[in-house]
Amino acid sequence: MNQGQDLIVDQRYDLIVIGSGPAGISAAINGVIRKKKVKVFGISDLSEKLTKAPRIDNYLGFFGVSGMDLKNSFANHIQKMDIQITEEKVDAVYAMGDHFAVSTRLNMYEATSVVVATGVSIKKSIPGEDVFLGKGVGYCATCDAPIYKNKVVAIVGYDVHAEEEANFMLDVASKVYYIPMYKPIKKIREGIEILEKKPKEIIGDDHAKKLLFQDGELEADGFFILKDSVDLDQLVPGVEIAEGHFKVDRHMETNIPGLYAAGDCTGKPYQYLKAAGEGQVAALNAVSYLDNR
Amino acid sequence: MNQGQDLIVDQRYDLIVIGSGPAGISAAINGVIRKKKVKVFGISDLSEKLTKAPRIDNYLGFFGVSGMDLKNSFANHIQKMDIQITEEKVDAVYAMGDHFAVSTRLNMYEATSVVVATGVSIKKSIPGEDVFLGKGVGYCATCDAPIYKNKVVAIVGYDVHAEEEANFMLDVASKVYYIPMYKPIKKIREGIEILEKKPKEIIGDDHAKKLLFQDGELEADGFFILKDSVDLDQLVPGVEIAEGHFKVDRHMETNIPGLYAAGDCTGKPYQYLKAAGEGQVAALNAVSYLDNR
Repeated sequence: MNQGQDLIVDQRYDLIVIGSGPAGISAAINGVIRKKKVKVFGISDLSEKLTKAPRIDNYLGFFGVSGMDLKNSFANHIQKMDIQITEEKVDAVYAMGDHFAVSTRLNMYEATSVVVATGVSIKKSIPGEDVFLGKGVGYCATCDAPIYKNKVVAIVGYDVHAEEEANFMLDVASKVYYIPMYKPIKKIREGIEILEKKPKEIIGDDHAKKLLFQDGELEADGFFILKDSVDLDQLVPGVEIAEGHFKVDRHMETNIPGLYAAGDCTGKPYQYLKAAGEGQVAALNAVSYLDNR
Repeated sequence: MNQGQDLIVDQRYDLIVIGSGPAGISAAINGVIRKKKVKVFGISDLSEKLTKAPRIDNYLGFFGVSGMDLKNSFANHIQKMDIQITEEKVDAVYAMGDHFAVSTRLNMYEATSVVVATGVSIKKSIPGEDVFLGKGVGYCATCDAPIYKNKVVAIVGYDVHAEEEANFMLDVASKVYYIPMYKPIKKIREGIEILEKKPKEIIGDDHAKKLLFQDGELEADGFFILKDSVDLDQLVPGVEIAEGHFKVDRHMETNIPGLYAAGDCTGKPYQYLKAAGEGQVAALNAVSYLDNR
């Protein structure tokens, strides 16, 4: 949940889908076909991982397709069904009893059921990241912003969502450096200094002091590492986790009634078709849940 | 298992897939990609149910596609990967400890792992069928053939596989009637009398005597109802069944190590994409099973 901002509660949805990879959009499609009021959070490019796959042979119905072509087929599918992706990053899902509160950096939304399809983070830590976590290294720039008033902040952003936090930080810190780990940059405010360098290590004493690159280094008071996913149990307080993934049954339901998960975040194999099938199962069971209330 | 015929044991496969619907062919594709020696039993038309679907909107990547077009995409996929479908009906899968024996009407095959993807039968019983089962009504003509030597037999066939049994029966019985519940007939031997009528009821006293049609009736000593599927626990002796479906875990594994199931035979929702995703998961876990031996 954002701090220091007014929260706007939107209308209540039947189903909120978190994630725009194959699992998320498959869930959305099935929810919409069953005439439910559905909202999807993700990125309009659907899945960065998918677009980078050079060739996919194991998504039944497509042979020898590039990740980009498969992504375009998915994009075409949701476009024809008039399904929109809301580009806000979801920070937390709270089970409120008869509904869920879904909090993004900007707003608060409500839904009767939720399908979480956030994928898994395959990002490695930067050496020193774990050592200095909470000692000058953080994962949520907007949360910790007050600490860095008039100070120097470096933000390593792993996807386009991180730009919002960098832009927000510019109003608070005396200086903001932004180190993008992706391309292209979408909208970084003037005044933020962009460094296109690969982080090598974070060093310091009892507090993080410097970010080292292959060539050069950067001194700052605070360092934020903004990955494209948050820890699953941090995303959904109270949810049961098994070996780093949501624990789900064959209905893709978690331990929280009305909360479903699908795709990579439920476990291996990490495959597009498996994810899409699970998204369908999750959504259809969410529909049953909605209809039986 | 066939009786009265010599059984030919083929070479041992890594993976035998039973079924050629979306779950079965997705399993086959994934097994082949992982360089396993795979054999698939099914029908070359892949899935009768699929080809009859007028329009499918919920298979991610295809929108507003006909069942026939989707089937053609699947057929194209396996053709490009040089995957063949063996058109023999599997009667039973026996767990032999370190491998499985897969018995068809004509042969016996061996595999180290098996994915069962037989779908579910949605065929209703003919009134009287249950009453006279074992009393002149049977489900396996070749098994019971000796009983009907020089007698009159009527065979209701629900798919092309039933023709083999009718043709076999002609060598034993004095007269064979064949009532096809599908079109077109592929190969019925001369001498068999084909009746294109819809069965209404089986009647008799302590033994089945007549098959009634809308218009007319047929007297016989034995009646065989040959459906396109057998009961799951009859197909795999010792397998655990839950509510009419194979009981599987999140790896699609049954209670028998090395035996996986996927698609409709594992439970609802009965959906193509769900089935295809499960076929992939089943095959990839079968591959792990093979690699870890």
